[in-house]
Amino acid sequence: MNQGRLCPIIPEPAERRLRLLDQRLLPEREEYLCCRSVDGLILAIRDMAVRGAPAIGVSAAWGCWLAALELEERGVVGPGWPAWLNAQLEKLAAVRPTAVNLRRAVERMREVWRRAPGLEPPGLIVVWEAEAWAIQEEDISVNRRLGGHGAALLDDGDTVLTHCNAGILATSGFGTALGVIYAAVEAGKKIRVIADETRPLLQGARLSAYELKAAGVEVRLACDNACALLLSRGLARKALVGADRIAANGDTANKIGTYGVALLARRFRVPFYVAAPSSTFDFHCPDGTGIPLEERPEQEVTFLGGGRIAPEGVSAYNFAFDVTPAGLISGFITEYGVFRPPYSRSLRRLRRKIGV
Amino acid sequence: MNQGRLCPIIPEPAERRLRLLDQRLLPEREEYLCCRSVDGLILAIRDMAVRGAPAIGVSAAWGCWLAALELEERGVVGPGWPAWLNAQLEKLAAVRPTAVNLRRAVERMREVWRRAPGLEPPGLIVVWEAEAWAIQEEDISVNRRLGGHGAALLDDGDTVLTHCNAGILATSGFGTALGVIYAAVEAGKKIRVIADETRPLLQGARLSAYELKAAGVEVRLACDNACALLLSRGLARKALVGADRIAANGDTANKIGTYGVALLARRFRVPFYVAAPSSTFDFHCPDGTGIPLEERPEQEVTFLGGGRIAPEGVSAYNFAFDVTPAGLISGFITEYGVFRPPYSRSLRRLRRKIGV
Repeated sequence: MNQGRLCPIIPEPAERRLRLLDQRLLPEREEYLCCRSVDGLILAIRDMAVRGAPAIGVSAAWGCWLAALELEERGVVGPGWPAWLNAQLEKLAAVRPTAVNLRRAVERMREVWRRAPGLEPPGLIVVWEAEAWAIQEEDISVNRRLGGHGAALLDDGDTVLTHCNAGILATSGFGTALGVIYAAVEAGKKIRVIADETRPLLQGARLSAYELKAAGVEVRLACDNACALLLSRGLARKALVGADRIAANGDTANKIGTYGVALLARRFRVPFYVAAPSSTFDFHCPDGTGIPLEERPEQEVTFLGGGRIAPEGVSAYNFAFDVTPAGLISGFITEYGVFRPPYSRSLRRLRRKIGV
Repeated sequence: MNQGRLCPIIPEPAERRLRLLDQRLLPEREEYLCCRSVDGLILAIRDMAVRGAPAIGVSAAWGCWLAALELEERGVVGPGWPAWLNAQLEKLAAVRPTAVNLRRAVERMREVWRRAPGLEPPGLIVVWEAEAWAIQEEDISVNRRLGGHGAALLDDGDTVLTHCNAGILATSGFGTALGVIYAAVEAGKKIRVIADETRPLLQGARLSAYELKAAGVEVRLACDNACALLLSRGLARKALVGADRIAANGDTANKIGTYGVALLARRFRVPFYVAAPSSTFDFHCPDGTGIPLEERPEQEVTFLGGGRIAPEGVSAYNFAFDVTPAGLISGFITEYGVFRPPYSRSLRRLRRKIGV
């Protein structure tokens, strides 16, 4: 297993920059883009050079630090600097609405700042760098623990269907849904993966297939619409996805198409698991109706690889996410273990553990 | 409505050729390819320059005629010519296995030949040309009747979800599922269409969107995986698809993804109709398990628009069709009217009507 080779997020404090693996170019090229400003990072998140709820959260923590560096570089001084900085942070927190990790990471950075009210920019840069490192390292360690808990659910010889990319590339380095698979493989189990290609941006074909193959895990691609046929033939024994936001009752926002996979998994009695760190739970959201679902540009659907695939003037739906009702989910795999229905009880237990 | 403008199949007997709209190039270019031999047509069918069960059937009828022309041109004479011709016909009938229309059209041409045993090639060319015209014209008139019956099922203001392309481009000119929509629009109803893009070959995005827009019907594209979200929000009132082969019990083979749409339609109480001429029914097949499902090259999934979308060496499922169990189908729209459950009774009635 060499899944550690891929580093989607590389902070370089000495160079005062954040390097991000440009995931739009995969699998063709492994190229990094350099963010030296919060605006640069905002573009990278908006245009999905970096994507995946945990990876966006970690990047956003570094984004706050970049904003603080900019205070110095742009010479924002005087009593106005906290207002300028807060405006930057708010802009960053708002760039993608569905995943809770983005706003949560920015809030956590803001909280550090709040706890040290007299801090001037040079001091803030230092404490924010430390906090961003902490967030990044926690992401990996939390996902490793999550992976360990989830690995126990997979049997030797299992074929697992996954949707979108909830792997190394969606985090700062181990993965959530794919982290479970890596942990199971590390534990000596033979696991095969069916990766839904995941239109429109093909994260399954471009990213999951890429990192699984690099890690030596057997992966086979399928168009999203093959799900009913594959499950009806018993070709996958489990379904396993990540999450962008999980409401208090267990309703789960994840990449568009997840809801369909969950319904079909239920129909064919295939267990459907969601792997996500506890930070993906939003206990302020009572249920899925409170989760904002991002709509993205229609061109993501009507163009592919620079070429038009639909006639000019034809419009398209492009909801980036859907919400899977809790009732379709067999269990939540978190760093605190696996939480099973009834969620009214089990997720209350999780909430107590994390103290929110 | 100017849906008559698109002519996917243009026989030119004076030029001894069959012109086919090359559907691989749509929506970018409307270009025709010329088939002057049965082998040329076989390639066109195999590589899906012409596709759609009825269109393949009509093309295959002309393919038999092309084979007879080749007898003359290649100078296949002497007592061996019927064997040579039969071999060509068999090769043609076998090029795609799922849709019943291909083999059925070839069988019908063969039957004409069988009924005139003393016929020499020049005479055969004449009767086959007449028979191919008849098959082509029947296809249009049958689909017009089918459209009329189906139009009664659609309400003014309906939004209809469709999968793949069962339109003008899948037939010789009016369409089956989309023919129902054209007939409803002609009857003065306002109908909107949601077209599933239909991976891997994007017949929904490239073909259905194209012909619906050309006919002035409001169409919006959706990725296949958005189906659960769209239906859960009530964005489509009916689902309507074509078919490649329908077994005696009503199990229906159609483009991969249809089964998933049918399951989701059932879940969200959206009526799911199959529009197909009676020639698509294969009463020799007791149920769906007897329908051969074509698997096509993996490259159709792993490449898109000439570019690779998955890492090298990653394999992919590419079943071209799936089978929707009869129990999920609200009704079959045929030229003889709409046949509803229980199909054990209603499809027996259809069988008597067509006398097979």
